[in-house]
Amino acid sequence: MTGAPSGRATQGTQDRHGAQEDVGGVVTLARALLRCPSVTPDDGCAIDVLATVLRDMGFAVTSLPFGEGDAYTPNLFARLGTGHPHVCFAGHTDVVPVGDAAWRSDPFGAQIHDGLLYGRGACDMKGGIAAFVAAIRCYLARHGGTIPGSVSLLITGDEEGPATNGTVRVLEWMAANGQIPDFCLVGEPTNPQQMGEVIKIGRRGSLNATITVTGVQGHVAYPHRADNPVHRLLALLHELTVAPLDTGSEWFESSSLQVTSVDVGNTATNVIPATACARFNIRFNDLHTGADLSGWIRTVCARHAPGADVQIRISGESFLTQPTAGVDALRDAVTAVTGQMPRLDTGGGTSDARFISQYCPVAEFGLVGASMHKVDEHVPVADLTQLARIYDRFVERLMA
Amino acid sequence: MTGAPSGRATQGTQDRHGAQEDVGGVVTLARALLRCPSVTPDDGCAIDVLATVLRDMGFAVTSLPFGEGDAYTPNLFARLGTGHPHVCFAGHTDVVPVGDAAWRSDPFGAQIHDGLLYGRGACDMKGGIAAFVAAIRCYLARHGGTIPGSVSLLITGDEEGPATNGTVRVLEWMAANGQIPDFCLVGEPTNPQQMGEVIKIGRRGSLNATITVTGVQGHVAYPHRADNPVHRLLALLHELTVAPLDTGSEWFESSSLQVTSVDVGNTATNVIPATACARFNIRFNDLHTGADLSGWIRTVCARHAPGADVQIRISGESFLTQPTAGVDALRDAVTAVTGQMPRLDTGGGTSDARFISQYCPVAEFGLVGASMHKVDEHVPVADLTQLARIYDRFVERLMA
Ligand SMILES: [Zn+2]
Ligand SMILES: [Zn+2]
Repeated sequence: MTGAPSGRATQGTQDRHGAQEDVGGVVTLARALLRCPSVTPDDGCAIDVLATVLRDMGFAVTSLPFGEGDAYTPNLFARLGTGHPHVCFAGHTDVVPVGDAAWRSDPFGAQIHDGLLYGRGACDMKGGIAAFVAAIRCYLARHGGTIPGSVSLLITGDEEGPATNGTVRVLEWMAANGQIPDFCLVGEPTNPQQMGEVIKIGRRGSLNATITVTGVQGHVAYPHRADNPVHRLLALLHELTVAPLDTGSEWFESSSLQVTSVDVGNTATNVIPATACARFNIRFNDLHTGADLSGWIRTVCARHAPGADVQIRISGESFLTQPTAGVDALRDAVTAVTGQMPRLDTGGGTSDARFISQYCPVAEFGLVGASMHKVDEHVPVADLTQLARIYDRFVERLMA
Repeated sequence: MTGAPSGRATQGTQDRHGAQEDVGGVVTLARALLRCPSVTPDDGCAIDVLATVLRDMGFAVTSLPFGEGDAYTPNLFARLGTGHPHVCFAGHTDVVPVGDAAWRSDPFGAQIHDGLLYGRGACDMKGGIAAFVAAIRCYLARHGGTIPGSVSLLITGDEEGPATNGTVRVLEWMAANGQIPDFCLVGEPTNPQQMGEVIKIGRRGSLNATITVTGVQGHVAYPHRADNPVHRLLALLHELTVAPLDTGSEWFESSSLQVTSVDVGNTATNVIPATACARFNIRFNDLHTGADLSGWIRTVCARHAPGADVQIRISGESFLTQPTAGVDALRDAVTAVTGQMPRLDTGGGTSDARFISQYCPVAEFGLVGASMHKVDEHVPVADLTQLARIYDRFVERLMA
């Protein structure tokens, strides 16, 4: 699923000791994290394993569990140094379920076959966390164990789940305690096929709507005595979908409204039903806000179905980090290590970067995501090494 | 639910012996039929009760059961005389279920309270059958027990069910045996609120369609990698519903397309589903045929969703009996007995008249339908008497 080895051979100047070298202990830490069965909402001791490593390195580690009972979420904030620039790495230790299909090896066994490290979370995103920790080890080794500014890690145990008591709550705590960084790097897998392809500097916003239209039930032979809620729903959905929302903006692809379900559940062929329900999602770029779109949806609904029940949930506004110092440093590091010029991109799904963007500039770069959330999730060991080197160069540039 | 008693008091000249008189035994026979629990597909001996009465009156009675097992349907054809004009009365002894709500008296008890006869089938349409038999008794009593032409009854035990082995099969038998009448009167309840309002001289056709669109499942954030079947379905349903099919014709109200259900059943808010399904019914007038509409539906589907699965079932074509001798006789009889000029109408649901219309002129006139298919179905005893007199006058006119 990842890039061909021949592509990597050209990067020999960056990799003096060979691809299998455990740069900064990246492979060892990645395997230790992969052995923790941390399927959301379980933690599987992943955060404890990480906390121990960070304390040993001299980080001030703060455990930040939020929520109780079923909503209990372990989180961690760890910072090394107190000065500026303050660079934060954000990520999650929780993973999605293993799924029903059989894996070629134990999903929590962290086994390496033919240079590929297998495990749930290998690319999304325990491998990314290990790479950042390894990068800091490399940096410290070159600089006598000290750092002029500071580096920190914002780690949550609930990114794949409801995310209510994760990054959002940690950010509130960081703001209240003077810990907001100057730049944040999210380690989600951003590369579609091979290392060095994509840095994400923004994400589209996301809105979910559920519309329930209530009419008047009746017999199909007497439509004038009924009020068909399906027809009202069809009319409003047509108006919502007939034209594209936009054609994209400088950094964003076009916004998209997708109707995901329409449900009536009427089995009688001669009966006009009493209610009809539709659900849709909008991924929107920086030409829109959640509030503007909500107003538009309610206006269209009111025109075709006055009194319809309209439920709207905005799970994230769109955001964009203009290419400035932090993004430039990241781009230079990627190019230096991989020999590729990464594309600055805002496509795809959402991540916790949508929350971080409300506090500081944020960009995302991590491993190849081709196998994420799938059976046999894996990462080439060579990619782990490469990512550790990229993160190391990125920190070096920002601290220089 | 029915007309006010004051409205009926004006018809005193037609009712020399008072409203409660059992004209031609109409009340006695209606009660005997109502006591048979003949919920489709059960017969409850209703057809046997009727056959015995008709044999006693001199009818040649032919039992015509069709189908086997679950599809077994009792039917009856009975004819008195062999000459022409041959007038046939068509009806059904089966009834719809009693329903979940409590009745004020036993639905099969045939009790009379305050001049109203209660029971499932009172107006739809055991009362109508009793009125026709009573009318023939009255006619024979006035004419020395003979009739110049002939009268017959086509009675099925499955009109409310699939109707596969009912009227359709009896008509085939009648055609094969030289028993097709010159005119057929269907005794379904045609009057919305009071006796004398409506004679039906046609019915709209009915078509049911089920359309299943298959697309390509995907994530809402990557719509270009998916093919949303809901959007294709919405587009085709919009084209099918955006404009009225017509504005009516000389004898018909406008045709009507009603979408009765749209179903996707996708619970994931971030997933574009693989399939979407819609069902609709068209009630169509004489400006359309089932074949023309089917072609139109398939063309629209092909434009928006090539390869969609389109299932179409035509349960009846529209038909119209131009107002001629039979209809005139019926109209005159209704006016003479009720003092009202009935409206000639083609609205409402379908009935077995759609099948009969393929063999001979057919019109429909019966009781007040306001309580049909509802809890506490009932008919005023005075309406039963009145209907017997109307049918009597109708036969008298046609035989004269
Ligand atoms: Zn992730
Ligand atoms: Zn009926």
